[in-house]
Amino acid sequence: MALSPYQQLEEEFHRIHVFRGAASLLRWDQAVMMPRGSIDVRGEQLAALETECHAILCSPKVSRMLERAMANAPGLEDWQVANLREMRRQRDHAIATPGSLVARLAQESALAEAACVEARRTQRFDVLKPHLEAVVSLVRDKASLLGQHLGLAPYDALLDEFSPGLTTSEIDSLFKALGQRLPALIRDAIELQGDTPPLPLLPPGGRLSVTKQKALAAEIMRAVGFSFERGRLDASDQPLTEGVPGDLRVTSRFDGAHPLRGLYDALHETGHALYDLGLPRAWATQPVGRNRGLVLEESQSLLLSTLIGHSRPFVAYLQPLLEKTLGVSGPEWSVDNLYRHLTRVQRSLSRVDADELTRPVHITLRFELENDLLTGALAVADLPEAWNAGIEERLGVRPANDLEGCLQDMHWPAGDFGFFPAYGVGALIAMQIWETLRTERDDIDAEIAAGQFGGIVGWLRDNVHGLGASLGVPELIKQATGKPLSAAPALRYLDAKYLEQR
Amino acid sequence: MALSPYQQLEEEFHRIHVFRGAASLLRWDQAVMMPRGSIDVRGEQLAALETECHAILCSPKVSRMLERAMANAPGLEDWQVANLREMRRQRDHAIATPGSLVARLAQESALAEAACVEARRTQRFDVLKPHLEAVVSLVRDKASLLGQHLGLAPYDALLDEFSPGLTTSEIDSLFKALGQRLPALIRDAIELQGDTPPLPLLPPGGRLSVTKQKALAAEIMRAVGFSFERGRLDASDQPLTEGVPGDLRVTSRFDGAHPLRGLYDALHETGHALYDLGLPRAWATQPVGRNRGLVLEESQSLLLSTLIGHSRPFVAYLQPLLEKTLGVSGPEWSVDNLYRHLTRVQRSLSRVDADELTRPVHITLRFELENDLLTGALAVADLPEAWNAGIEERLGVRPANDLEGCLQDMHWPAGDFGFFPAYGVGALIAMQIWETLRTERDDIDAEIAAGQFGGIVGWLRDNVHGLGASLGVPELIKQATGKPLSAAPALRYLDAKYLEQR
Repeated sequence: MALSPYQQLEEEFHRIHVFRGAASLLRWDQAVMMPRGSIDVRGEQLAALETECHAILCSPKVSRMLERAMANAPGLEDWQVANLREMRRQRDHAIATPGSLVARLAQESALAEAACVEARRTQRFDVLKPHLEAVVSLVRDKASLLGQHLGLAPYDALLDEFSPGLTTSEIDSLFKALGQRLPALIRDAIELQGDTPPLPLLPPGGRLSVTKQKALAAEIMRAVGFSFERGRLDASDQPLTEGVPGDLRVTSRFDGAHPLRGLYDALHETGHALYDLGLPRAWATQPVGRNRGLVLEESQSLLLSTLIGHSRPFVAYLQPLLEKTLGVSGPEWSVDNLYRHLTRVQRSLSRVDADELTRPVHITLRFELENDLLTGALAVADLPEAWNAGIEERLGVRPANDLEGCLQDMHWPAGDFGFFPAYGVGALIAMQIWETLRTERDDIDAEIAAGQFGGIVGWLRDNVHGLGASLGVPELIKQATGKPLSAAPALRYLDAKYLEQR
Repeated sequence: MALSPYQQLEEEFHRIHVFRGAASLLRWDQAVMMPRGSIDVRGEQLAALETECHAILCSPKVSRMLERAMANAPGLEDWQVANLREMRRQRDHAIATPGSLVARLAQESALAEAACVEARRTQRFDVLKPHLEAVVSLVRDKASLLGQHLGLAPYDALLDEFSPGLTTSEIDSLFKALGQRLPALIRDAIELQGDTPPLPLLPPGGRLSVTKQKALAAEIMRAVGFSFERGRLDASDQPLTEGVPGDLRVTSRFDGAHPLRGLYDALHETGHALYDLGLPRAWATQPVGRNRGLVLEESQSLLLSTLIGHSRPFVAYLQPLLEKTLGVSGPEWSVDNLYRHLTRVQRSLSRVDADELTRPVHITLRFELENDLLTGALAVADLPEAWNAGIEERLGVRPANDLEGCLQDMHWPAGDFGFFPAYGVGALIAMQIWETLRTERDDIDAEIAAGQFGGIVGWLRDNVHGLGASLGVPELIKQATGKPLSAAPALRYLDAKYLEQR
């Protein structure tokens, strides 16, 4: 029997699924196992697999089948209609950005990334400047083409890739609400926490076994539901999650001198992995069966690593494990001191090192600056000063050099614009989901303190993970939490955590 | 400018190259890193990548382009003409075996492999019998279809996959020449070696560090020219070589109780890897740039692991390394005793454990039996008795049960017929090349004893590896050694090694 247009589309997207799954494993291998000298071969393989996917998405056959299948949409089930919409979204993104532009952007951003490394080494922004200008110009072209094709404003078109269904104006109003409260909250929290820092976990020069740290991370991953029958934890320079549901590869970086960092990076990645594990099995090979983009991925990571992982009940669960696995004890490893470490608010100049309260400040600044870079309101040459002034205005501290300023991230040289907001919105989503979850489950703190995560993860699977990409971000949040996405739950959570509890 | 039909073919085969390279890495990962529970996902990925390659090879477009390009062959360079021939060969093989037959064979052989495991566990051939009958019947269909399509006798068509250009009658006459001499040679060698076995390398229950064994293997791999900048050595249940030139993954199995096995398995695989490393760079993504099939691969493995690796000068090179890396010494680790271990001739019932002299006996028996199974001259039900009688007639020992007999290999249950001869012919090729190499290089023994392998590997690259698949097996041997393939060099080598030297 001949396949219907819809069924033919499923077959084509199944092929894309296989190529992407293979590419993901190749990326994991590159980070964890690959010999250094093989990078050129690997680059060719990844580019060729990406080209295959792009060719399928842009093929006249797929566009023809999409038209026919959409004409027959009344005969399809709901999830199939959602699948068609996601197929079209992928097709639209692929077809709007011609291969030549993609190739040039890949080329220029590779140069800009290398220049950024050099600029950081020499603390000279002007080494990066011409390359970043080239990248910004190409991203502007891409945003404009994408926008025309998707019927969106240019920056909204870039957002659509990472945060489907969210617009610049929505993000702007979310960030504004946050921005109005944060400065006072940061000030009050720092005042409340006082001048005495927590006891250092290790004496100067102290180190803890990396092997034991990894074993601890694995034990906690197992407790939250990660299956080592169908997944691995390894070490790599940058933490990442790759693979496919059914074979998930999490990595973290373990450092003897920073005994909590490897654990929390692993938890962050495990948040991604649990999301993937909870995706709807029946749609596994189809676009509707994928996760709902970076913004949701980030929300699930933060939910596990920060909202749960930095909570007092979690620290109560963690403390005896630290003692058992790492053999540490004493007042510096007490629940109180650990919790003080994990919730310490500081006016850090670094986004990566920033805490729950100051991280949004870093994100919102980047959101505004990248908007201005793309519209042309801000010239690349003026970026360092705009950055430093923006941070000083919001945090009250000023970078001493560009290394502490606009050279700290690799996203823009890499051509990733529209990406940063997903970190910030992801955090808001996490806090809104968290508020709902705490209402719907009786004694979540007791569960966490007992190391019982099954109920929490089950709720997430039912209300978030299991929906795959069947809804846009706003609809998904509305359905999961009963309310439209807003900054209010985040402000309630942050206020409670950083002001009331002490 | 529009691409010529030939250039379009190069693009299509480049795609196949990428898919096969990705699949190879996935197979390596499966053997070395993959979580046990992920086998189903991996199976789907590998099958889907294979389906992609099959679809390209069978596409009307490729057949059309092949016709047009062959009509324009006078305008092509020699290597391109050879490339076209290899493209056609791959197309012919793919198109002759319909997907439904391939799928049924995959299904039945998976069942037969499982049944074989069970038959070995229970020592009951009848558990395997019905499944092996089903596999033989399907392989017969495959051979017949392939034969019709390629204009070859059915078994010759199967051979063509593993030993391109060799026929049953040629193999038959090679094996006959060997078979006429071997029984007497085995008898005389055993007599000469006497009843006193070499000193055991380890005391009962003794073990040597697996980590140190691996380090030793890596040191020797480096010495023979394997680059760890672009390759790895890992442990897996079965030794294998995967990856692509530029990223080669060798594995071995290391066992504390068998301190030489892991090393020699690694050397065997490194023989494959050096072949891949020496393939013509400029044709890397094209069929003509691949190695010349299993028979040549096997010859290169044996050349390194057996002809070089089991030679007295190699043992002289190895002995101080064993002492240095494994910390072993004493009379059992002397050059003499090690060499006696490595050259000990025994009437073993196991092909895998067989030595240089008795292995060909195992191969030729399997060659005859699988021919008879396919023509129907031998019924599956009569296989155990035919096996036992054949071994007894050739080696003078009789299997006590089918575990020592026809249940020892997995090849037939797996559907691999026409495969075994490649082991035997590969050994003959290795010995013929070895004879030439020894004539053309002044003092090869001194090079080996000094751990200087650059000259030998360079010669192999110039005369074998660097030719890729540009010639058929017979032509390649003729060109590399100046003589047609024959058993004479093998007989001279074996006579000299096992009779004269003592």
